[in-house]
Amino acid sequence: MLGERVLLGPGPSLLPPEVSAALSEPMVGHMDPDLFPVLEETVSLLRDVFQTENELTLPISGTGHAGMEAALLHMVKPGERLVVCSAGFFADRLAEIARRIGAEVIRVEAPWGKPVDPADLEKMLKAASGPGASCVAAVHVETSTGVLHPIRDLARVARAHGAMVLVDAVASLAGAETPVDNWEIDACYSGSQKCLSAPPGMAPISVNARTRGRFSPATYYLDLELLWKYWGSGHAYHHTVPVQFVYAMRAALRLVMDEGLAARFERHWRNTRALWAGLQAMGLELLVDEPHRSPTITTVRIPDGADDAKVRTRLLREYNIEIAGGLGPLRGKIWRIGLMGHSSQMRHVLTLLSALEAVLASEGVKAARGAAIAQTVASR
Amino acid sequence: MLGERVLLGPGPSLLPPEVSAALSEPMVGHMDPDLFPVLEETVSLLRDVFQTENELTLPISGTGHAGMEAALLHMVKPGERLVVCSAGFFADRLAEIARRIGAEVIRVEAPWGKPVDPADLEKMLKAASGPGASCVAAVHVETSTGVLHPIRDLARVARAHGAMVLVDAVASLAGAETPVDNWEIDACYSGSQKCLSAPPGMAPISVNARTRGRFSPATYYLDLELLWKYWGSGHAYHHTVPVQFVYAMRAALRLVMDEGLAARFERHWRNTRALWAGLQAMGLELLVDEPHRSPTITTVRIPDGADDAKVRTRLLREYNIEIAGGLGPLRGKIWRIGLMGHSSQMRHVLTLLSALEAVLASEGVKAARGAAIAQTVASR
Repeated sequence: MLGERVLLGPGPSLLPPEVSAALSEPMVGHMDPDLFPVLEETVSLLRDVFQTENELTLPISGTGHAGMEAALLHMVKPGERLVVCSAGFFADRLAEIARRIGAEVIRVEAPWGKPVDPADLEKMLKAASGPGASCVAAVHVETSTGVLHPIRDLARVARAHGAMVLVDAVASLAGAETPVDNWEIDACYSGSQKCLSAPPGMAPISVNARTRGRFSPATYYLDLELLWKYWGSGHAYHHTVPVQFVYAMRAALRLVMDEGLAARFERHWRNTRALWAGLQAMGLELLVDEPHRSPTITTVRIPDGADDAKVRTRLLREYNIEIAGGLGPLRGKIWRIGLMGHSSQMRHVLTLLSALEAVLASEGVKAARGAAIAQTVASR
Repeated sequence: MLGERVLLGPGPSLLPPEVSAALSEPMVGHMDPDLFPVLEETVSLLRDVFQTENELTLPISGTGHAGMEAALLHMVKPGERLVVCSAGFFADRLAEIARRIGAEVIRVEAPWGKPVDPADLEKMLKAASGPGASCVAAVHVETSTGVLHPIRDLARVARAHGAMVLVDAVASLAGAETPVDNWEIDACYSGSQKCLSAPPGMAPISVNARTRGRFSPATYYLDLELLWKYWGSGHAYHHTVPVQFVYAMRAALRLVMDEGLAARFERHWRNTRALWAGLQAMGLELLVDEPHRSPTITTVRIPDGADDAKVRTRLLREYNIEIAGGLGPLRGKIWRIGLMGHSSQMRHVLTLLSALEAVLASEGVKAARGAAIAQTVASR
């Protein structure tokens, strides 16, 4: 058995005790009539969390990447044009998966650490020759950079040009405002293990009526209409659903709605702002400009003199705290700190700041001493 | 919380306590260095259970259907010809998924309840015009009928005609002899929740060297080479692996190898034969002729005068026992009883026989009384 980690990386987050307990409920079959109300409650709670009336809303039996692939397979026919708002690792992955399934992919880019500008999307959509884009995809919180994208504005531009809107809410759902219906998002997916604080292994997804029935995708496992026949009122056999994860997902969703979405978003903002204040008081620099920072993932530049891997290893070995390094061009340049779901707690902010200060001090890295915690507390 | 079921359907099976306990081990990240030895041990144990030296052996983060789709995507390029040995629901699904990914599918058929005859496969492969079949797919235990296919012979015929061999071992792996290397199977997949008695949600798969590197499949989530970069020695990030399921899978695999494959197969045969003896002593008729019966799933004809749904509902409500009905053309005609993994225990055989006798008696169905248990015990 491994040590009990304080999970402050970009996912998975810590599990609330109610969710852990749900994993050990007794096993039942996927066609057990007593399981069906559990499926229905899970779907209904998911709609509440996505803030949608969409009928087709369910958790896919796979991780966030399965959600990404399912959403693309649902939204983009091979040969159609997909515009990806691209400013990080996960937007790149979206583009890669879309290419594999045969889409023509066009990117609107921004440097890693900045958001894609809706004005750039608009310019590109106006200038593009040939048939228009059938879909515009954007990542709400880019997990590799900590940028919170202006989804509402990007979606408005896309719609104005007749394109459908596909949003990756893996690192935002239940942690930052993502009202699917209000923002007129056509398809939205997430992962279980971030702001929902369920175990990794399920991918909530919701798609609206106008995207449905356009074609049959080249997949069986990720075919949303077939999945809906099981999760919806028919409960027709599709595959053996991971029962333990369904229980855990339901428990996690109940906790989200018991806390209330507004209170939960406010908690994420409050704790993350406290973290920013503390890190900056230590003399560290944040990667993202304040207006574009996510309330769920913070990226901080690694200070001069600090060894990326060594600092993270010491946090893990000496304090049992997980944070993450950078990806791609940001590898070795930033640390990524997640305060998501059950991990977003003030005591974890204080634990991390104290541990980081102690490690940096003993590594001889120049950083202000003692200021971080005072500033963190004052900032709340 | 639902009642504690005695799971005697065609999956999921009961979880051993060691596997349930593994689900509540503390959460760690998918890139935690302490998790890597767990991944490596899981892969190594999986190779033992598949009886293979194949390097690329891992559990996919999805259910058995994800394994089916991944195997097909790995083995069959769009446009290539796939022969499916077709005699039940799951062979049909294999054909359906293959068609969706663009394969040309040809079937060699047998009636539901019989196995596909290797001689028929041979005739078809000889007679087929145009380019030869690149791959022959067969279902080892057809979960919808309880037939155990002669995989060794089917594979020999396929190889003799230059075709690769793809085997569905969802309802056989760790319950019936499936030696991948000895039978020269090129790709083999299974599910976690049947004879392995891990929770549903993972799909073990193993592919050999000659099938690798032929092309890049049109999927990211199920791309085995990319998955291997995470599960293999590199541990490069691909997706957030469901950590709890990895723990549970490792615990289940350890139990399989602690028992020993030979002893485990013998246990499955012994308990299933006892079930056959008991059912027949009650006057019930088995669907499959004895030489073709599976040691993991038994199919029994519903006796005259018995109401399919009513009997199953009474077993569930009055005795907390799950068995399953028939699929497709066998709906309403048979019951399917699984004795798989941890569910394959003599006490469960006796419980089911007594409960079934009691229910049939109170429904006024004509069946021998009291003989089943004596015959079951005598048969061991």
